Amino acid sequence: MAIVLGPNQYGKAEVRVVAVDRSSPRHELVDLNVSTSLRGDFAAAHTRGDNAHVLTTDAQKNTVFAFARDGVGSPEAFGLRLARHLAASYDWITGARVAVESYGWERIAVGGRPHDHAFRRPGGEVRTAVVTADGDDLHVLAGLADLVVLKTTGSEFWGFPRDRYTTLAETRDRVLATAVTARWRYASADQDWDHDFSTVRATLLETFAATHSLALQQTLYAMGEAVLEAVPEVAEVRMSMPNRHHFLQDLSAYGLSNTPGEDETLVYHADDRPYGLIEGTVLRDDVPPAEVAWLGTPGSR
Amino acid sequence: MAIVLGPNQYGKAEVRVVAVDRSSPRHELVDLNVSTSLRGDFAAAHTRGDNAHVLTTDAQKNTVFAFARDGVGSPEAFGLRLARHLAASYDWITGARVAVESYGWERIAVGGRPHDHAFRRPGGEVRTAVVTADGDDLHVLAGLADLVVLKTTGSEFWGFPRDRYTTLAETRDRVLATAVTARWRYASADQDWDHDFSTVRATLLETFAATHSLALQQTLYAMGEAVLEAVPEVAEVRMSMPNRHHFLQDLSAYGLSNTPGEDETLVYHADDRPYGLIEGTVLRDDVPPAEVAWLGTPGSR
Amino acid sequence: MAIVLGPNQYGKAEVRVVAVDRSSPRHELVDLNVSTSLRGDFAAAHTRGDNAHVLTTDAQKNTVFAFARDGVGSPEAFGLRLARHLAASYDWITGARVAVESYGWERIAVGGRPHDHAFRRPGGEVRTAVVTADGDDLHVLAGLADLVVLKTTGSEFWGFPRDRYTTLAETRDRVLATAVTARWRYASADQDWDHDFSTVRATLLETFAATHSLALQQTLYAMGEAVLEAVPEVAEVRMSMPNRHHFLQDLSAYGLSNTPGEDETLVYHADDRPYGLIEGTVLRDDVPPAEVAWLGTPGSR
Amino acid sequence: MAIVLGPNQYGKAEVRVVAVDRSSPRHELVDLNVSTSLRGDFAAAHTRGDNAHVLTTDAQKNTVFAFARDGVGSPEAFGLRLARHLAASYDWITGARVAVESYGWERIAVGGRPHDHAFRRPGGEVRTAVVTADGDDLHVLAGLADLVVLKTTGSEFWGFPRDRYTTLAETRDRVLATAVTARWRYASADQDWDHDFSTVRATLLETFAATHSLALQQTLYAMGEAVLEAVPEVAEVRMSMPNRHHFLQDLSAYGLSNTPGEDETLVYHADDRPYGLIEGTVLRDDVPPAEVAWLGTPGSR
Repeated sequence: MAIVLGPNQYGKAEVRVVAVDRSSPRHELVDLNVSTSLRGDFAAAHTRGDNAHVLTTDAQKNTVFAFARDGVGSPEAFGLRLARHLAASYDWITGARVAVESYGWERIAVGGRPHDHAFRRPGGEVRTAVVTADGDDLHVLAGLADLVVLKTTGSEFWGFPRDRYTTLAETRDRVLATAVTARWRYASADQDWDHDFSTVRATLLETFAATHSLALQQTLYAMGEAVLEAVPEVAEVRMSMPNRHHFLQDLSAYGLSNTPGEDETLVYHADDRPYGLIEGTVLRDDVPPAEVAWLGTPGSR
Repeated sequence: MAIVLGPNQYGKAEVRVVAVDRSSPRHELVDLNVSTSLRGDFAAAHTRGDNAHVLTTDAQKNTVFAFARDGVGSPEAFGLRLARHLAASYDWITGARVAVESYGWERIAVGGRPHDHAFRRPGGEVRTAVVTADGDDLHVLAGLADLVVLKTTGSEFWGFPRDRYTTLAETRDRVLATAVTARWRYASADQDWDHDFSTVRATLLETFAATHSLALQQTLYAMGEAVLEAVPEVAEVRMSMPNRHHFLQDLSAYGLSNTPGEDETLVYHADDRPYGLIEGTVLRDDVPPAEVAWLGTPGSR
Repeated sequence: MAIVLGPNQYGKAEVRVVAVDRSSPRHELVDLNVSTSLRGDFAAAHTRGDNAHVLTTDAQKNTVFAFARDGVGSPEAFGLRLARHLAASYDWITGARVAVESYGWERIAVGGRPHDHAFRRPGGEVRTAVVTADGDDLHVLAGLADLVVLKTTGSEFWGFPRDRYTTLAETRDRVLATAVTARWRYASADQDWDHDFSTVRATLLETFAATHSLALQQTLYAMGEAVLEAVPEVAEVRMSMPNRHHFLQDLSAYGLSNTPGEDETLVYHADDRPYGLIEGTVLRDDVPPAEVAWLGTPGSR
Repeated sequence: MAIVLGPNQYGKAEVRVVAVDRSSPRHELVDLNVSTSLRGDFAAAHTRGDNAHVLTTDAQKNTVFAFARDGVGSPEAFGLRLARHLAASYDWITGARVAVESYGWERIAVGGRPHDHAFRRPGGEVRTAVVTADGDDLHVLAGLADLVVLKTTGSEFWGFPRDRYTTLAETRDRVLATAVTARWRYASADQDWDHDFSTVRATLLETFAATHSLALQQTLYAMGEAVLEAVPEVAEVRMSMPNRHHFLQDLSAYGLSNTPGEDETLVYHADDRPYGLIEGTVLRDDVPPAEVAWLGTPGSR
C-alpha cells in the first residue's frame, strides 16, 4: 500500500471583473465573477513544494482582466476564450475549468428614456456559465441560479404513501415556491449563447407558470423537457429546486378561517428551514454523456 | 448611586407573512417581513421576572398574521394598523414600533401576457416602512434598501486636501456605484403611500442618473433635495450610500492601456472591502424634528 | 421654508488590518476590521461638490494601516489613537468615530504545546470597540457581539397577560438561547482595556448561566447589573438579545412522549424566524448621559 | 431520440434538531443540521405527477426528530441509523444520503467550574458527516468545514513559471491562511467515530502548523498524508483550501518600512476576493474507489 495524490485542481476564485464598452455614448456594461481552475501534472508541488509547474493563481487573475480588455461578450464565449488559453499555456496542463457568474444591469429610465450610462442592478437571479477544456474537448454548461418563482394556486400534493412518520395532510390547492438553479449542457461549443440563454430562461419560466403541478418533481421534469424541446443543441438539463414552504397559517384560535376555495384572502407563513429539495436531470437518450463537463460543479447530479 | 433600568423595548422580529388576494382569478400577492416592538412599563419583568405586563412576542406574531387576514395594503398602512393596535392594547404600553420589509414580485409572462397566479421575485431591492406609535402620535418612515446603481461615467473626484496619508490620485472620470438605503419621514400619517413611494423611488433613480457628480456627497444631497421638492409631505430624508469602489485595473505590465478618454473598453475590479460610506440627512428647516420616529432604526443619523 | 443639509458623516468602512508582532519567535497576532467616520463642516461637498474639506476615505484607510505599523494594542486603545488623530487633522473636522471589530485567534497546539506562529480562529463571537471624539471629549464603548449561549433548563415563562391573540402555553422548563450583543460605556478614556473586557465578558457569561430565568428580560437586566457591579468605571450597558426559540417537537403522532421532567432525552426544533428580540439599557443613575457616544451604533437604545 | 429522466433524488434539507440528554443533572447537548435524500424509482412523480412512490419530505423530517428521541450519539452513527432506515422503507427506494452538520457547544465556566446546563457555542468550525446507503452498501464520510487557520511565518512561494501575465513577486516569508474543508472516507461503517474524528482533526491542525510550506498544495498533501498515516481505516481524504490572501501593505509613501526579516511589526491587508482555491485528494492506492459515497457532496473531487 502507498499513499498517493489523487485528482486535484487549483486556480483563482471570484475575480470580480467589470468591463465597460464606451465605443459609443451609449455605454454597455458587463459585470462578472470569474473562477478558474487548472488540471494537469502538479504532483511535484504537492509532494515536494516544487512550483515549477504552478502557473500562479495571480497570473490566472491577471489573464481574466487582460482578456476582458479585448471585450467580453457572453459569459460562455468569455469562458471559452479563457479555458482554451489556460489549458494550452503549458504542456503539463491538460485541462481548465472556467466558471462565470454574470450579474444583470438595467438602464435607469430618465424622463421615460433609458439612460446612456446609468444603470440599476436588479439583484437576485444570476446567469452562470461553466466551460471545461479537457485535452482537445470543450464543454459548455449554461445556467441560471436563484430564479425565485411562486404560484399562488395550480399546485396539488396528494397520493403519497403513508409510513409511520407520515402526518402531512393531502392538499388540492397550495402555494408552490422555489428558487430554480438550472444548468444545461450544449452538444456544441459554437452557439448563439445569448439567444439560447434567453430561449431557455423564458421556457423555464413559462413552463413553471403553465404547468398544473401535482408534485414539484413533475414541474421540474416538465421544465427540463420543455428546454430540450425548445433548443435542439441542449443535451441535458440538471436542476435543483428547493421547495420553499408556504404554510397556511392556522387562525382558528381567533375565530378566523383561512381556507383555499372559501376565503378571498389567504395568509401564509413563509418558512426558512427545513425545506424540501428536489434535484433531477432531464436528458436526450442519444447524446453521449460528458461527466467531465460537470466535474467540480456543485448541486448537479 | 443606584443601578437602574434605562430605555428598553421588546417584540417579535422577522415575521414572514405572505398574503394572497384571490377575490378575482388574477391573484394579488404581498410578501412581508414584519418586526414589532413594544415600549412602556416593563420594569417588573426586568427586575423581578414578573411578566404581568409582557404581552408575549408570540401574541405579537399572531396579531401580524390575523391582521393580514383582513388584507394588507401598503407596508405603511399595514404598519399603522399594527402600531395603533399594539400601542393601545394595555394601558402600560405607551408606544410601538412596527418595521416592515416588502419584497416585490412580478407576474411571469406566458405567451407575452402576465400570468394570473405565477410570479417571479426579482430580488435585491427592498421596500421598507417603519411606523412608530408614541402615545397619541404616529410617525411614518417610508424607505428602500439595497437599490444598487452605477454610472460608467459622469463622476469626478478631485480638489480634496492632501495630508501625510493621502496618496489617492485625482480623477475626472470614474465609475460611481452604490447601494442606496434611503428613509424619508412624512409629516402626516395619511398619504397615498404607494403613489408617494413610486414618486420618491423614481426621483432617487433619476437624480442619481442625471447628476454629474463631483462627490458622492453631492449626489446624495441632490437626491435628497429632489425628493423633498417632489413630495411636499416629506419632512426629511436620511440616506446611507456605500461607495462601491470600481478600480481601473492596471494592465500596463502586459502592454495594455486602460485609460478613460482613450480606450473604448475599460476594465475595472469591483472591490468588496474596504468601502467608503457616506451618510447624510436632507431636511426642511421649518418642520419640527421627531427623533422618536427614528429610534431603533439603524443607519440613520 | 428651505431645504438644508442635516447631520452627516462619512468615512472608510471595514478596513481589514492584520498586525503581527514578531519581536520574539513567539509571534502575536491582531486581526481587526476598522471603520472610520468624520464629522464636521462638509457642507460644500454636499451642495457644490467642492471637496476642499474632504479628507479622502482612502487617506483614512491609509492612516489605519500606518498607525497599525506602530503596534495595535487593544481595540479601544487603537480606536482612541485613530479618533484623536482624525478629529484633529483639520480645523473643520469636529469629531470622529472609529468602530473596531476584533477577531480572536488561538494558538494551535502541537504535541500539547501552543505553537509560536500557527493559529486557529474559533469564529463566531466578536469583540467590539467604538471610540468617539467629539470636540475635546472622548467616549469609549467596549462590547461584544454574537456571544451565543444556551441553557437546557433553568428557564421559565408564565404569568403573562392573555389578549385575544395570545395562544402561547405557559412553561416552567424551557430551553433559553440567545446571541448576546452587549456594549458598555466607560466613564473614562483611560482603562486597562483588556482586563476590563475580560471581567465584563466573564461576568456576562456567569450571570447568564447562574440566573434562574423567569423572562429573558430578567436575564438581560441581571447581566447588565452584574457588569455595573463588577466594573465601577462602566457607566451603562446596552444589550440586544434575540430569543432563539427552541420548540419542543411534538412526537405524539408516533407514540413518543417529549416532556420536560418526564423524559430523559428531549428533542427540540431550533427555529430561525421569527424570533423574539429583547433590547434594554442598564445604567447608573448618577452618571451624565452621553448620547454622542452611541451615535451611529446600530442596535443600541 | 427520446427525452428521458436521468439521475434524481429528493429529500428534506436542513432539519435543525437539538437533543438534550437530561439523564443526569449534567446535561449533554447535541445540535445538528440534518439533510436527507432518497434515491430510487421516482419516475412516475416526474412524468405524471403520481406520488405513490414519494415518501414525503415531511415524513423524512419527522423521522429525524423521532430518531433523535432515542438519543443521537455521533453524527456518523446518527446518519447511519437514518440512512439504513430510509433506504429500507419501501422496495422502490434503493438508496439514501444523510448529511449532518454538527455544531459544537462548550460548557460555560462559573466560578471556574463547567456548568451543568449552560453552554456557549464557539461558532465557525463545523463537524460534518455524510452517510450513503446504496443498496446493501453503507459509506461514511466524516469531515469538518471552516476550520480557519493561519501561520505568520514558515511559508514561502517561489520557483513558479512566469508567463506573459505573471507579475507576482517571489517570497520567502509570507502569511499563509486558509479555511480548511476536509472530508475523509472510512473503509468501514463501524468505527469509534468520535475518537477517530478527534484524531483526524488534531492531525490536520498539527500538520498545518508544523509543515514548513513551499506551496499551499504541499501543505494540503502533507495534511492528507498525515491523516492516512494516523488512522488506518481512512481510505481517502478530499480537501478544499482557499488561500486567504494577506498582502503586506505598502507603507513606503509615508516613510514606513514593512519588511519581513527587518521589521518587528508587520502590517497586512486581509483581502476578501479573489482568492486562490486549492483542491485535492490524498488516498491509499490499494483501496477500491467508491464514487457513490461522494455523490451530491459539493467541493469534492
